[in-house]
Amino acid sequence: MISDKLKAKLAGGSAIRKMFEEGNRLKAIYGVENVYDFSIGNPDLEPPKEVFDALKDLAENPIPGMHGYMSNSGYESTRAMIAEKRSNESSVKVEANAICMTVGAAAAMNDVFHSILDDGDEVILLAPFFMEYLNYIDNHNGVSVIVDTDNNFMPDIKKIEEAITPKTKAIVINSPNNPSGVVYSKELLCELNDMLLKQDHVIHVIADEPYIDLAYDGIEVPAVLDCFKNLIICFSWSKSLSLPGERIGYTLVSPNHEDFEDLTGAIVLSNRILGSVNAPAIWQRVIEKSLNAKVDVANYEYRRNLLYSNIVDAGFDAVKPNGALYIFMNTPNGLTDQEFAEVCAKQNLLLVGGKSFSRPGYCRLAFCVSEMTIRNSRKAFFKIAEELGLEHRSEL
Amino acid sequence: MISDKLKAKLAGGSAIRKMFEEGNRLKAIYGVENVYDFSIGNPDLEPPKEVFDALKDLAENPIPGMHGYMSNSGYESTRAMIAEKRSNESSVKVEANAICMTVGAAAAMNDVFHSILDDGDEVILLAPFFMEYLNYIDNHNGVSVIVDTDNNFMPDIKKIEEAITPKTKAIVINSPNNPSGVVYSKELLCELNDMLLKQDHVIHVIADEPYIDLAYDGIEVPAVLDCFKNLIICFSWSKSLSLPGERIGYTLVSPNHEDFEDLTGAIVLSNRILGSVNAPAIWQRVIEKSLNAKVDVANYEYRRNLLYSNIVDAGFDAVKPNGALYIFMNTPNGLTDQEFAEVCAKQNLLLVGGKSFSRPGYCRLAFCVSEMTIRNSRKAFFKIAEELGLEHRSEL
Repeated sequence: MISDKLKAKLAGGSAIRKMFEEGNRLKAIYGVENVYDFSIGNPDLEPPKEVFDALKDLAENPIPGMHGYMSNSGYESTRAMIAEKRSNESSVKVEANAICMTVGAAAAMNDVFHSILDDGDEVILLAPFFMEYLNYIDNHNGVSVIVDTDNNFMPDIKKIEEAITPKTKAIVINSPNNPSGVVYSKELLCELNDMLLKQDHVIHVIADEPYIDLAYDGIEVPAVLDCFKNLIICFSWSKSLSLPGERIGYTLVSPNHEDFEDLTGAIVLSNRILGSVNAPAIWQRVIEKSLNAKVDVANYEYRRNLLYSNIVDAGFDAVKPNGALYIFMNTPNGLTDQEFAEVCAKQNLLLVGGKSFSRPGYCRLAFCVSEMTIRNSRKAFFKIAEELGLEHRSEL
Repeated sequence: MISDKLKAKLAGGSAIRKMFEEGNRLKAIYGVENVYDFSIGNPDLEPPKEVFDALKDLAENPIPGMHGYMSNSGYESTRAMIAEKRSNESSVKVEANAICMTVGAAAAMNDVFHSILDDGDEVILLAPFFMEYLNYIDNHNGVSVIVDTDNNFMPDIKKIEEAITPKTKAIVINSPNNPSGVVYSKELLCELNDMLLKQDHVIHVIADEPYIDLAYDGIEVPAVLDCFKNLIICFSWSKSLSLPGERIGYTLVSPNHEDFEDLTGAIVLSNRILGSVNAPAIWQRVIEKSLNAKVDVANYEYRRNLLYSNIVDAGFDAVKPNGALYIFMNTPNGLTDQEFAEVCAKQNLLLVGGKSFSRPGYCRLAFCVSEMTIRNSRKAFFKIAEELGLEHRSEL
């Protein structure tokens, strides 16, 4: 009595969710301090003070009608402030009408795919990628075309060009990347844009940017507005302001996009009819007052360093992530994701296999877990390395 | 560069939205007090005190992690409280696992259609109905099958049965009804259930209940849980607590539903992948503290009475609505919706033609507008009636 598509998806379940349940089972047996659960990427920092202050101010000084409907695209004032911020951060002048406030980036991407995809249209995804993209595309009858990145998880322009067909409608870019944590350079993005503009039809570039504010090592994430012409940004404050449960984000269509008028209209229409109607009113107002605030990024960077040291010191290999909340490490000794995950689980260490991100031979560890968990896990990494005959690079 | 479906929808536009813009144009010319805009059903009462108190309490006493992710179905505590309320209001015992918190009723309905519809599956709609249903069904590749209600806007069981085919997957019930304001009786609903259970496949009953708390004249809206077996409720606090901009509601699958397990799972999965991920965290907590509160329903009833008197006293005909926020009046003298709307617009009186609700020959007037507007409009109704040669039933 449910649809065939959903029946198949329900049967498949979510690998991350399964790990989450396994983690709870192990914690109940061994105690929370003896289980090293790196499987879930749940931003665990509190929002910055600006958010709490703004919420308190609104709650104590309510504005008449503040919980009522507004335009489906959101408050003009909120959109104007975001447009100004994006304009200041790039060489492109953005106006409020480029923006539609959404129920987070997941809704933003659904709005965009609903707006652009006809049945069977193709969307290029660069592996490894956030696995929900497959659902977002499938929801709107699109077809995912997966193209591998190189060994450093960087897009391979030639491979992408080879994957383009007359049905290619869009490509998704996610930098800083989930799960690899890599940040794409401006040069690479501009090169990708050049290649796309050479094609004989328009290919939308969808930049999913939930991690744009989480960059480490002093690295600046390039402004995609400076790189792409036919660009649609999907942004969320889930990580930047640690508000994942509140569902607030936006879409932004570059004013340089060849189909700016229709596209902005279609996205607002999609936002209405897909069921969001509009982004939560109160969070739009909070955003206005905390637009330049950020969570404590240094805290994430500190924990990334700790976890990365554990992994590398024990003898494993991983590309050091410059952003996001994850380390995407190689499985050692040619083990499959599943085999390696089982070895780790014996030491109560939980991670997600790379297969879930369409890149087998790797696994993802989220470092948005307590410092204690990361510190305690060090001996587990060393034990696993010993069991696999790896040579430590440092003392325990 | 946008999809064909969306291109067509963008070209069509929204009749209500056009009226809204016409209203703004007229107000700019004639002044807000001389334009009688009954076109938009925007709940205009402030939320009850309980909502403001709960929000203030949460803002002043934040709970660690209160803005973080929770289960995709929402907080267990919120769902348990709603389940208890629904259990108390019916003879059916509902548990928290029957409920999935959603971004309002629009998201709830999209979640449900995404869960149940295979390509080409049919959904029966009873005209007149909220026109967005057509989009919600079309979003998920379903086909709307429109069945007329009788002259009092009551479902005609025989007509519905005749419309059932092997592809009929669901029927939508909306009582109190938008746009007619009628409330279906328990007997009628039970009769509908009996007919549906006699069919040789399961037909889901989707009860869209945003207006369930807005009933007048002491009428009790029957508990649909007592009437239907294969029931899915879509609820929203947009009207009950006047929170339309905040996007908070839920789905509830009857524990008696033949496919309870799969269906509840599919709805939570749909809620995740369609982009809501979860309902806004803060509003779930506010709901816990204001679950038994309501907007000032007597205030809506008072305005309904005023507007209804204007219409009937001037000489027009309308079924008196027992609920919701609208009066659905007959167009006089056999005029089409469009012709009548044009006559009304000449007196600066704006309404939406019944065609927008798949019931031509009527028009919808929303009474959630200021008392002053309703009072001032009386002379306009009388003038329009005179112009059309109708006999007044009362003095101006």
